[in-house]
Amino acid sequence: MTQSANNKIEINVAYLGPAGTYSQLAAMEFFGSDVGLVDCSTIDDVFSAVETAQTTHGIVPVENSTEGAINNTQDCLVDCSAKIIGEQIVSIEHSLLAQSGTKKSDIRRIASHKQSLAQCRNYLSANFPQVEQLECSSNAEAAILAQSDANTAAIASGFAATIYKLHCLEDHIQDKSNNRTRFLVLSLGETEATGEDKTSILVYTENKPGALFRVLEPFEKYQLSLTKIETRPSKKEAWEYVFFIDFEGHAKDRITMELFDVLKVCGAEVKLLGSYPASKLV
Amino acid sequence: MTQSANNKIEINVAYLGPAGTYSQLAAMEFFGSDVGLVDCSTIDDVFSAVETAQTTHGIVPVENSTEGAINNTQDCLVDCSAKIIGEQIVSIEHSLLAQSGTKKSDIRRIASHKQSLAQCRNYLSANFPQVEQLECSSNAEAAILAQSDANTAAIASGFAATIYKLHCLEDHIQDKSNNRTRFLVLSLGETEATGEDKTSILVYTENKPGALFRVLEPFEKYQLSLTKIETRPSKKEAWEYVFFIDFEGHAKDRITMELFDVLKVCGAEVKLLGSYPASKLV
Repeated sequence: MTQSANNKIEINVAYLGPAGTYSQLAAMEFFGSDVGLVDCSTIDDVFSAVETAQTTHGIVPVENSTEGAINNTQDCLVDCSAKIIGEQIVSIEHSLLAQSGTKKSDIRRIASHKQSLAQCRNYLSANFPQVEQLECSSNAEAAILAQSDANTAAIASGFAATIYKLHCLEDHIQDKSNNRTRFLVLSLGETEATGEDKTSILVYTENKPGALFRVLEPFEKYQLSLTKIETRPSKKEAWEYVFFIDFEGHAKDRITMELFDVLKVCGAEVKLLGSYPASKLV
Repeated sequence: MTQSANNKIEINVAYLGPAGTYSQLAAMEFFGSDVGLVDCSTIDDVFSAVETAQTTHGIVPVENSTEGAINNTQDCLVDCSAKIIGEQIVSIEHSLLAQSGTKKSDIRRIASHKQSLAQCRNYLSANFPQVEQLECSSNAEAAILAQSDANTAAIASGFAATIYKLHCLEDHIQDKSNNRTRFLVLSLGETEATGEDKTSILVYTENKPGALFRVLEPFEKYQLSLTKIETRPSKKEAWEYVFFIDFEGHAKDRITMELFDVLKVCGAEVKLLGSYPASKLV
């Protein structure tokens, strides 16, 4: 973390690049445009940039409202030494982008990430049934392709259109509206309670019948509202699981500290991933 | 379902092809070699072959002990009209395969599915640091490539080696031992209780605090042992979830029928995915 002459802490944020991804959009929506941005090529690299203090913050996608959890991010959280200090929800709004001057009838190829092509399946089969589809590693990569070829269109965000100076041929082309992705903001620092917080924890239970029930029982007892529970393989033993749990409250609340004590008595191992102000958009 | 002259019901099984995949191996381990096999190009196609009675059975991967749930299969189960009638656990044992006569020093390219390349990352960097890696849509596709090119090796199972008449240069090359995949067997029929059964259900809960706890409470009350719980987006509303629950018991057991009644009273909607003999290997 670097400090400038006027003693203001400079913020720089690692995100999953290249420029123009929904991850960069999430970073700008969370931090505003007045921060440094560092693009990384993998989610693992974003975690490592934060953990080694190359950047003050990182932002990673954790869940899509249609596609579900992003396993890579969850697996990184298991061993992560940084904390979650915020969340940001971004609306996934796909547009059809091309060079200025390109008309729909000029398009010979439509490039995008596999998931985005799938999310626009109905639109594409109704409007471009004969046009070749090209899978790219990200929507931003697709926008870069469209930038260099007048016959290639990209499916990407309006934000990518701005970054790559592309023309928007059509907006809102995804089959389902209300498709959103939730991002986590990471940092080596911690947050103070605001009164409207959320806490994310990892729970390892004994591999015994009723173990999950005994983990959930204290949440009910303390009336702590679970907003989310996810299962992942523990990576220790085959068919052993770890639970990702989000609930309303801050780790420094008295009631949360009591909860952690009770969970320990139940034989559960708890790792605090972070407490942070809950997004109003969830 | 077709019946032959001697009145024996002919079994044919849809699986995720091409020939030589772990899915085919799972089908043969479950049914033996005396059944018809129909290779499909996607998991969706396997479901649809069973639902439209093109085949009597289907087999689909549902979970890997290291990588976790296979979302595509879970999403298909949500709308599926067929039932789960069995499960099969297959050990994932990768080998390095090439044409007979090819030595390790001849290898210029190693082909496999992305996940298999990742599972052999340590082996590859220790033994083939300079060799090009080629991602294929399946390990069986990689074996087909190796069959036609003496300088290409494939990472695939010993089973694929037999199918494609390839030579095994080295066995057990995956970084983690004890890597297994669980497959589900689908059919339009149903199974009778054997006394050692497992039941899979889908549960939609109200989007209210404590909803998951209230779903798990009756399992505890009836001492029904949960073997598994997974969360997926409901696809109806953003941030609404559906739970995949496996537990010990059969849907026709009196106690299970009581459980379903109690869940209904709690406001949960339950879809029975199937009851089937539990694999000894889990």
